[in-house]
Amino acid sequence: MKISVLTLFPDMFNGVFQSSILKNAQEKGAVQYDVVNFRDYTEDRHNRVDDYPYGGGGGMVLTPQPVFDAVNSIKTESKTEPRIILLCPQGERYSQKKAEALANEEHLILICGHYEGYDERIREHLVTDEISIGDYVLTGGEIGAMVIADSVTRLLPGVLGNETSAVTDSYSTGLLEYPHYTRPSKFLDYEVPDVLLSGHHERIDKWRREQSLKRTYERRPDLLENMELSEEDKLYLKTLNKSEENS
Amino acid sequence: MKISVLTLFPDMFNGVFQSSILKNAQEKGAVQYDVVNFRDYTEDRHNRVDDYPYGGGGGMVLTPQPVFDAVNSIKTESKTEPRIILLCPQGERYSQKKAEALANEEHLILICGHYEGYDERIREHLVTDEISIGDYVLTGGEIGAMVIADSVTRLLPGVLGNETSAVTDSYSTGLLEYPHYTRPSKFLDYEVPDVLLSGHHERIDKWRREQSLKRTYERRPDLLENMELSEEDKLYLKTLNKSEENS
Repeated sequence: MKISVLTLFPDMFNGVFQSSILKNAQEKGAVQYDVVNFRDYTEDRHNRVDDYPYGGGGGMVLTPQPVFDAVNSIKTESKTEPRIILLCPQGERYSQKKAEALANEEHLILICGHYEGYDERIREHLVTDEISIGDYVLTGGEIGAMVIADSVTRLLPGVLGNETSAVTDSYSTGLLEYPHYTRPSKFLDYEVPDVLLSGHHERIDKWRREQSLKRTYERRPDLLENMELSEEDKLYLKTLNKSEENS
Repeated sequence: MKISVLTLFPDMFNGVFQSSILKNAQEKGAVQYDVVNFRDYTEDRHNRVDDYPYGGGGGMVLTPQPVFDAVNSIKTESKTEPRIILLCPQGERYSQKKAEALANEEHLILICGHYEGYDERIREHLVTDEISIGDYVLTGGEIGAMVIADSVTRLLPGVLGNETSAVTDSYSTGLLEYPHYTRPSKFLDYEVPDVLLSGHHERIDKWRREQSLKRTYERRPDLLENMELSEEDKLYLKTLNKSEENS
């Protein structure tokens, strides 16, 4: 897979793309990152990429020409039609499902604005997707592009050492993860639950499933709504419900 | 404000903390970032910070000792009680409201896991907040820590040039932003809406408000539920509702 990033601050990506799993993924050939400064494509003789908004008001607006030309230039290298993604607060809320869909593409182009808004014609006539990583305001689209690059890259074949790792993660099972414990069995005054030291695998599995259900029930009940649950799961959730009513 | 980050990959933060607005914010003295490798605090003679999970299963678990010791060491530099934040998928969903709350603190400590889970005792006995930046899986907590650092820093006094910028952003008004346009008035075949070229400020304000309402209504109706709307807003939303019924 190829991930092209259009940004005015290419240096922002050095740390993230050169560390840990994303670094290894490139070395293994699973992914290629290409960070492009779209200022290089401006036809403005002062190298500007933004201008005042029509109709007045504060802030500057990214002008369409450099973004259109940068995308069109990058597209010519693609054998297939790339997904052209605008990072913006008005976009579709990003999710693990969307990450899984994007991981099947051959080429993603991520467009990061900064400070300003985008000229609406970029949104209407150039991009295929608008994505928001959450309901909060950032100084630009760059960290959002890192979220997409990271979440998609880790799903590519061969990237995570253990092929099962991606599957058992939070959100992939639909439930929040159960609590983890490691040595020492007593740290300060805090002990590891007995069941995990029991060596009894069936009881451990049951405890973990119940802890996942309990945590999801308490913190993110919305996740339970669209899940297929076993009869045993449902029975356990009923006991949680009951203990709440009695308290 | 001081923002301390605990991570096994301190280099990941070089790009983001050394660019653009976050760089300027440090130079202005509005914020100080301190990136700490908590591996430096391990008492393990092989420098390990993780261990096998009690009860079996894949993946490694971050052991409590280095994280507790790193946090306690950093806390001694704080005059006030810092907020100690764990980035994790099980956490509270991050929001602009949370960013605004954190921007009032004097010291944030952000703990980033990587690959593995955390030993539950870190969650139960050390941290004050657990935060998730969205419903997707990342290779670690680092990009989440960048989200928090960025969204909080831009809210600090004096960081954004125009004091009003932070207020009129998406989510700060509660509505998605209206479309922006800049020169040229015709790009390829695509023209700027007449009203924006009219110079009639009252009509422009009305058009923008309606576009914000329309976009929010179409893309994020959940945001409208908790908003205080004027009678004029409500009347406009009714016309949208009607045109939908007729189509």
